Amino acid sequence: MKIRIGIIGAGRIGKIHADNLLRLAQAEVVAVSDLYAGPELEVWAADRGISTVTKNSDDIIARPDIDAVFICSSTDTHVPLIKQAARAGKHIFCEKPVSMDIAQTEEAVEAVRQAGVKLQIGFNRRFDHNFKRVREHVQAGTIGDLHIVKITSRDPNPPHEDYIKVSGGIFMDMMIHDFDMARFLSGSEVEEVYAQGNVLVDPVFAKYGDVDTAVVTLRFANGALGVIDNSRQAVYGYDQRVEVFGSKGSVAVANDHPNTAVVSTAEGIVSDKPLHFFLERYNDAYIEETQMFIDSLAKGAPLPVEGNDGLQAERIALAAKLSSRLKRPVKLSEIHELSKA
Amino acid sequence: MKIRIGIIGAGRIGKIHADNLLRLAQAEVVAVSDLYAGPELEVWAADRGISTVTKNSDDIIARPDIDAVFICSSTDTHVPLIKQAARAGKHIFCEKPVSMDIAQTEEAVEAVRQAGVKLQIGFNRRFDHNFKRVREHVQAGTIGDLHIVKITSRDPNPPHEDYIKVSGGIFMDMMIHDFDMARFLSGSEVEEVYAQGNVLVDPVFAKYGDVDTAVVTLRFANGALGVIDNSRQAVYGYDQRVEVFGSKGSVAVANDHPNTAVVSTAEGIVSDKPLHFFLERYNDAYIEETQMFIDSLAKGAPLPVEGNDGLQAERIALAAKLSSRLKRPVKLSEIHELSKA
Amino acid sequence: MKIRIGIIGAGRIGKIHADNLLRLAQAEVVAVSDLYAGPELEVWAADRGISTVTKNSDDIIARPDIDAVFICSSTDTHVPLIKQAARAGKHIFCEKPVSMDIAQTEEAVEAVRQAGVKLQIGFNRRFDHNFKRVREHVQAGTIGDLHIVKITSRDPNPPHEDYIKVSGGIFMDMMIHDFDMARFLSGSEVEEVYAQGNVLVDPVFAKYGDVDTAVVTLRFANGALGVIDNSRQAVYGYDQRVEVFGSKGSVAVANDHPNTAVVSTAEGIVSDKPLHFFLERYNDAYIEETQMFIDSLAKGAPLPVEGNDGLQAERIALAAKLSSRLKRPVKLSEIHELSKA
Amino acid sequence: MKIRIGIIGAGRIGKIHADNLLRLAQAEVVAVSDLYAGPELEVWAADRGISTVTKNSDDIIARPDIDAVFICSSTDTHVPLIKQAARAGKHIFCEKPVSMDIAQTEEAVEAVRQAGVKLQIGFNRRFDHNFKRVREHVQAGTIGDLHIVKITSRDPNPPHEDYIKVSGGIFMDMMIHDFDMARFLSGSEVEEVYAQGNVLVDPVFAKYGDVDTAVVTLRFANGALGVIDNSRQAVYGYDQRVEVFGSKGSVAVANDHPNTAVVSTAEGIVSDKPLHFFLERYNDAYIEETQMFIDSLAKGAPLPVEGNDGLQAERIALAAKLSSRLKRPVKLSEIHELSKA
Repeated sequence: MKIRIGIIGAGRIGKIHADNLLRLAQAEVVAVSDLYAGPELEVWAADRGISTVTKNSDDIIARPDIDAVFICSSTDTHVPLIKQAARAGKHIFCEKPVSMDIAQTEEAVEAVRQAGVKLQIGFNRRFDHNFKRVREHVQAGTIGDLHIVKITSRDPNPPHEDYIKVSGGIFMDMMIHDFDMARFLSGSEVEEVYAQGNVLVDPVFAKYGDVDTAVVTLRFANGALGVIDNSRQAVYGYDQRVEVFGSKGSVAVANDHPNTAVVSTAEGIVSDKPLHFFLERYNDAYIEETQMFIDSLAKGAPLPVEGNDGLQAERIALAAKLSSRLKRPVKLSEIHELSKA
Repeated sequence: MKIRIGIIGAGRIGKIHADNLLRLAQAEVVAVSDLYAGPELEVWAADRGISTVTKNSDDIIARPDIDAVFICSSTDTHVPLIKQAARAGKHIFCEKPVSMDIAQTEEAVEAVRQAGVKLQIGFNRRFDHNFKRVREHVQAGTIGDLHIVKITSRDPNPPHEDYIKVSGGIFMDMMIHDFDMARFLSGSEVEEVYAQGNVLVDPVFAKYGDVDTAVVTLRFANGALGVIDNSRQAVYGYDQRVEVFGSKGSVAVANDHPNTAVVSTAEGIVSDKPLHFFLERYNDAYIEETQMFIDSLAKGAPLPVEGNDGLQAERIALAAKLSSRLKRPVKLSEIHELSKA
Repeated sequence: MKIRIGIIGAGRIGKIHADNLLRLAQAEVVAVSDLYAGPELEVWAADRGISTVTKNSDDIIARPDIDAVFICSSTDTHVPLIKQAARAGKHIFCEKPVSMDIAQTEEAVEAVRQAGVKLQIGFNRRFDHNFKRVREHVQAGTIGDLHIVKITSRDPNPPHEDYIKVSGGIFMDMMIHDFDMARFLSGSEVEEVYAQGNVLVDPVFAKYGDVDTAVVTLRFANGALGVIDNSRQAVYGYDQRVEVFGSKGSVAVANDHPNTAVVSTAEGIVSDKPLHFFLERYNDAYIEETQMFIDSLAKGAPLPVEGNDGLQAERIALAAKLSSRLKRPVKLSEIHELSKA
Repeated sequence: MKIRIGIIGAGRIGKIHADNLLRLAQAEVVAVSDLYAGPELEVWAADRGISTVTKNSDDIIARPDIDAVFICSSTDTHVPLIKQAARAGKHIFCEKPVSMDIAQTEEAVEAVRQAGVKLQIGFNRRFDHNFKRVREHVQAGTIGDLHIVKITSRDPNPPHEDYIKVSGGIFMDMMIHDFDMARFLSGSEVEEVYAQGNVLVDPVFAKYGDVDTAVVTLRFANGALGVIDNSRQAVYGYDQRVEVFGSKGSVAVANDHPNTAVVSTAEGIVSDKPLHFFLERYNDAYIEETQMFIDSLAKGAPLPVEGNDGLQAERIALAAKLSSRLKRPVKLSEIHELSKA
């Protein structure tokens, strides 16, 4: 028996999840909803044997024959959709972030808990072959006790201004992946954050109170220190590296490249740039996160990343945002109080 | 309208091709034949919606609704099947080598020519991301005039004795891929071959007049020199590298690895071994060769590797075999004469 | 005519400088002083044709035939010796740090200025082949405007407790090199510092109010951000890397290794650890800094690193120390005020 | 007591050896001879405290106070000088090749044996940090039984025509280093050689019956196979790599680079070219070979490379030359007979 899925939000990422689900023997995509559904989406769905196309996500959540929904619509819709789907007994895969408001995310997580359904958050990087290998080494004790975690995450190009406007800012939109990675790799919670940022790539970020370059230091509950650097523009391509360092050594992962070719000429030694952006770099990771969600539903395996993981990453992002604004380190225990101010 | 395909020979490679074809919107696998077809194959086919399973390849070749066949059966069946399929007007994808007898391969290529059908040979490595990049650079003139081509090709483990027995020997079975690669990368024909071999991995190879370690030098029509080294056993994994060197520089490609993790400890700096074997390393290449075959049929694009490519690689392999036996360099122009001796 | 040199302090680094000077055609080492001078030092000096060995540095500074002194004695002696040597008209090479008290360092720099002599500070890393290449690229505009500077600096082993006691702490003793590197690479002054530290390697550091692991973020006058991580113990060897990132790309340098050998076995792919420690890694840099000091004296070339460079690095180190204590970012403009508190 | 040395032949390499000897506490260079000795050489010698400069090497060999000579004059003078020096009881360091005539080299080696003096041949690459590490691994059994040895050796630029004319050809002049390396790394003698060459870099080589590009395969006494490729012109710099492969894995060494800087820009990932040529790459190796020669004389340590090593490399070079001419593999046991023809 196949897991029957409805996709809510048929933008780029919604379509990627649909295509990845179609490759799985245990899953069946039966419906897709999108506010802007039209002939184009209908053709797309028909090509894939997806029978229902609708503008209204209620049509999906109401259907008793649907086991799970993928929430790939805009961030502001996530929490209401999660609550609604949870009440309807659907398992949920939701893109990151759950919301930009910790209290709302907490409500969503609570609704899921009460409904007894499963909620997986789309932290796709946890499924990347490189980062998984780092975590394996950390867990196996290869590097001993953890001392320093370093994460570099730089996009090849800044997003469009329309997106910057609603993105929630670099910490909530972009670095949230790295905050999750910090927790994933260290196996420890973050206790304190200090965020430095600046507008160095494009003045448009300043217009929305955002920065495009940021360096954030972390202090983990286990005493380890961390540092994350983000840039909205690395002209040489998507830059996604981590290094963990401890009492017995270090594990570091470099970028993925389209090939291993090294050209040696009178001008120097040259190789091709890293894989361009997240679709190229995390293609296999997207496939695997979908596979593991379905496996969890079909076989009762534990979820690889849960609602609480979404919540914790958002809490760190909020602490970073507050630190950047207050120009001082912020403890995660302070954010509730500080947010009210 | 989809290209309708029949698979002849449902061993490992036949099944891989079938699965790769199933991912293509333009292709449909409608039948599969195997001498040992039974309940297991029927389940396998049913899971994939392949309606016909038969022990007799005639059932496939005779069907007027089938456009093309994949010949994945044992090497000795290739030539008769190619002739039969060509006469029946089927396009053909055939695994390498076409045969171990140049005259027979020539007949097969001629039959294809007369029938006006297409014949693609399964030189999957031409579709590898690394080797394609090398060829692009050679063709773009990055390295200028070609002076030296170096190819390393080592398997992680020797094959089973049952296979060694019928393999045709290291030059025809294993190095044939490298002979094709030499032609592919250089864009030039090989004129002379000198082969050195020895039994260093396992005495079982000597039992069948074969060697397990070989170094072959090539002289190309354009004056460039080449060297290929093969081993049946590289304990660190599948070793597939090439380097081309010329008047303006060199291009070299290294192995593919499962991740980029580098572990630094008191013992040294360690990374994981290369991708284990051809299924892991050439997974994407297998997908692409299938895609290009279907594209060629559907859109009339030229084939990326043709019958003549199979023939030329076999001629070089035969020259290498003769060189090894005669302990002297052998010109390709001599092989007809020498084979008669 | 040769530059005549006296060495003050004949510990490990004093002897290294002496040996490096002996290789220079333009320099002559004529005297060496050390509080603990004895038969061993006399033999060492005799082997090198150094005629005078004394316990009293005054004997060196008083000699009219000596052109320059190398101050390699303990840090607390640096300032009085610089003042005395400057007044005596000697040019001075002084090991880092000049002192652990900014006001005293300022006095020393001022004394040098008034005397019109030259003062070079022993920031040997500026002469390292890797770091010089990074700076060349930054200055040539290869990476465009500077956005992020990242520096990793980890020692293979913690120092002995006797040294920890008087070291001045990780920021003044160890990270001071990285603060100088940050200025050297960026070509910009540091304006603000935030320091996080912890005792993760050995509890002995806590005993002296010191930390063994630290992550420090920097904000430069030109708007760029920086981050430095230090550890007193990297079991895989001396770890000295930098990366600078900007609007047109990045330049990164890796560690130096004793050889390029890569061993591939059934266990993995292994290479040797980096060069063990500063004597191995910076051997050539020590030679070059000495050469450039002598060149500056002999040919009037500008000094590659001056008293002010020593002062600025100390100011950043002090800011880091204060930040770590106050648990907040510290501006360099605040340190005068804060130090009084 | 110091070893007193005379240098015969004060060209580039003679001067390098002299300078390297001057750094050694146990050695003293007391005389230098050169056919073209004149004021320039006298200044050079005076700067270094070398008291005697002469045009006549007899002046050196006749001196009873000289313990050893470095023969750095043109190849045709090596054998008579070795014989003369041996008879005079001098220890000898001689540049490669001893001669281009095996019989003469044999006579020189025999003269040395009869005189009971030591003769070291200038195979400097044996002292290279990379190649030494490979040999250590081979000897330690890291790679198990040896199966394949691969050596790449390419010069950045072809020599001047004046040199080509008298060089003895690529096999005797250039590849002789690689033949020695093959013996050094494998610990086995070469039994058979097959040489392919072509003129691809510059037609001037053809004028002197020489080639500029060559690929040579070797068969070792222990059954292993080898391959060496040489080019007189690698535009990206000096290319000196080896790989040894065996039953337990492989060890490979890459080129040395002036720094580890990697530049990432919109155009690609770029690093600097390898160290330019032998003076840069083998600087430390030249120092070490001199040190070991002196150690052998001073402490009675065994020589690291002896007369017989020179002889064997020449025998392989001759076999390669014959193979290239006869266009067939040549056994080393045949060269005596074939040379007479």
